[in-house]
Amino acid sequence: MTLLYGIDLIGTFVFAISGALAAADKKFDLFGAAVIALVTALGGGTIRDVLIGSRPVGWMNDLNYLIAVGLAIGASFVFKARIQTLRRTLFLFDSIGIGVFTILGLQKTLNLGLSPIIAILMGAVSAVFGGVVRDVLCCEVPLIFRREIYATACLAGGSVYLLLDSLTVRRDVAIVITVLMIIALRLAAVKHKWYLPTIR
Amino acid sequence: MTLLYGIDLIGTFVFAISGALAAADKKFDLFGAAVIALVTALGGGTIRDVLIGSRPVGWMNDLNYLIAVGLAIGASFVFKARIQTLRRTLFLFDSIGIGVFTILGLQKTLNLGLSPIIAILMGAVSAVFGGVVRDVLCCEVPLIFRREIYATACLAGGSVYLLLDSLTVRRDVAIVITVLMIIALRLAAVKHKWYLPTIR
Amino acid sequence: MTLLYGIDLIGTFVFAISGALAAADKKFDLFGAAVIALVTALGGGTIRDVLIGSRPVGWMNDLNYLIAVGLAIGASFVFKARIQTLRRTLFLFDSIGIGVFTILGLQKTLNLGLSPIIAILMGAVSAVFGGVVRDVLCCEVPLIFRREIYATACLAGGSVYLLLDSLTVRRDVAIVITVLMIIALRLAAVKHKWYLPTIR
Repeated sequence: MTLLYGIDLIGTFVFAISGALAAADKKFDLFGAAVIALVTALGGGTIRDVLIGSRPVGWMNDLNYLIAVGLAIGASFVFKARIQTLRRTLFLFDSIGIGVFTILGLQKTLNLGLSPIIAILMGAVSAVFGGVVRDVLCCEVPLIFRREIYATACLAGGSVYLLLDSLTVRRDVAIVITVLMIIALRLAAVKHKWYLPTIR
Repeated sequence: MTLLYGIDLIGTFVFAISGALAAADKKFDLFGAAVIALVTALGGGTIRDVLIGSRPVGWMNDLNYLIAVGLAIGASFVFKARIQTLRRTLFLFDSIGIGVFTILGLQKTLNLGLSPIIAILMGAVSAVFGGVVRDVLCCEVPLIFRREIYATACLAGGSVYLLLDSLTVRRDVAIVITVLMIIALRLAAVKHKWYLPTIR
Repeated sequence: MTLLYGIDLIGTFVFAISGALAAADKKFDLFGAAVIALVTALGGGTIRDVLIGSRPVGWMNDLNYLIAVGLAIGASFVFKARIQTLRRTLFLFDSIGIGVFTILGLQKTLNLGLSPIIAILMGAVSAVFGGVVRDVLCCEVPLIFRREIYATACLAGGSVYLLLDSLTVRRDVAIVITVLMIIALRLAAVKHKWYLPTIR
């Protein structure tokens, strides 16, 4: 659990950086950038908690999440140029973050006694909806509605995790497999330009 | 109650179809279309439940709603061309759906002990805000802010339902009258091009 | 408390007026204007209540807030031209409203046992996010992401209020100082064209 927690914080940090950079592209001021960073990093889990009725919203009970976002805002502000040379590293941590967000969101939903299908959905919501709210606040059509097999990777990852769990695979093994699978799916989708079909 | 429940599911199905078609017009991929379908069909009730504090959000406790949305997504994907020839039928079911959403939302709010005025508001929110969230996610000014006496019909329908209820009219009769009134108002508004005034 | 309550209602009224005028600029019909007025006036507190898990959302338990919004919608509709000559007065009441919204939001968050940092954030959310939702529904990039030291004034005000409180300054004195400080910061920011830096 401690490892998952650490990765969760790192994922939050990386999501917040990507939010701050998006806000910088839009010429938002520091406050706007801070809001977008917060929303990108914590928005998915916030929406999940509101929907499943866990209250208050999770990050309110553990200030480390706010601290991670604050550090990310500071880092974006000070090191912006340097950060943009780290795109590959960020992509990697972003993918790991998505995997961990998916698993933690799924687990939290199951813990409240909700059905596995709802849990898989809420896992993906945790990982993906921060970006949706970021795009809405930036007045853009959410990226994930048009690109990459991003959310689909989360749904697939969540399903695999539940499957492994029902096969009584050890939890840490199941986590590693799930995260690796999500990363592999994303990389493959980007590399081979996989797209989901559209409704004609 | 069973009839209302059945119509509620059909309304959910029809709302989801209209969401999927809107997403197709926007060239969203299958995932985007699924999100828009979900949000259109379940968003109004979700916002109502979050606001009145009923948790978790209603559809999480009854998978039939997700199944209705899933079927609608599949149908939109497979039969898109054919569905668009059914616009009249869809309009009819959409109107019935709105009526039923209004009544069920109103009732749920009253059951939590909130005031009748709040209940009328929440009835309309149930029926109308799925479409608002759909439009926001599609990056468009919500349609209902500019067209048709759509939401107004829900507010009027909710008020009439409460009135009939206070006159101890039988519940099923009150439901039928309310739904018919909402349908009639919508049809008349479309036919006679009724608009609400704007603030000059 | 009664004075705060009165100012809270007046602030709600003024926020609703500004929402209705924004909707009129967008040529929304009366229903659209009413939704925008509601959202502008009550949206910040609504989001705060949803996040901290206070349910139902506050205004549902006290119809005076809805009445204040209803009066504002009526006033905007009838007196639009005259209201626009009152911009200065509106600006003043808007600023007082922001101060009071901040303090009440902060207090409510503390009362639920959440940490002071969360409380300062939620104070600002109460004051500022109604405008954010208004802008999103109007399909515009939220104003506060680009202009004025508006939200920052709320964060500063909330921090000062907590500081005074920890110094056991009398509550009404702390309130007056906080509100005056928020007003002064806003006026100074507008006058001297203070901006927050952006991420280069």
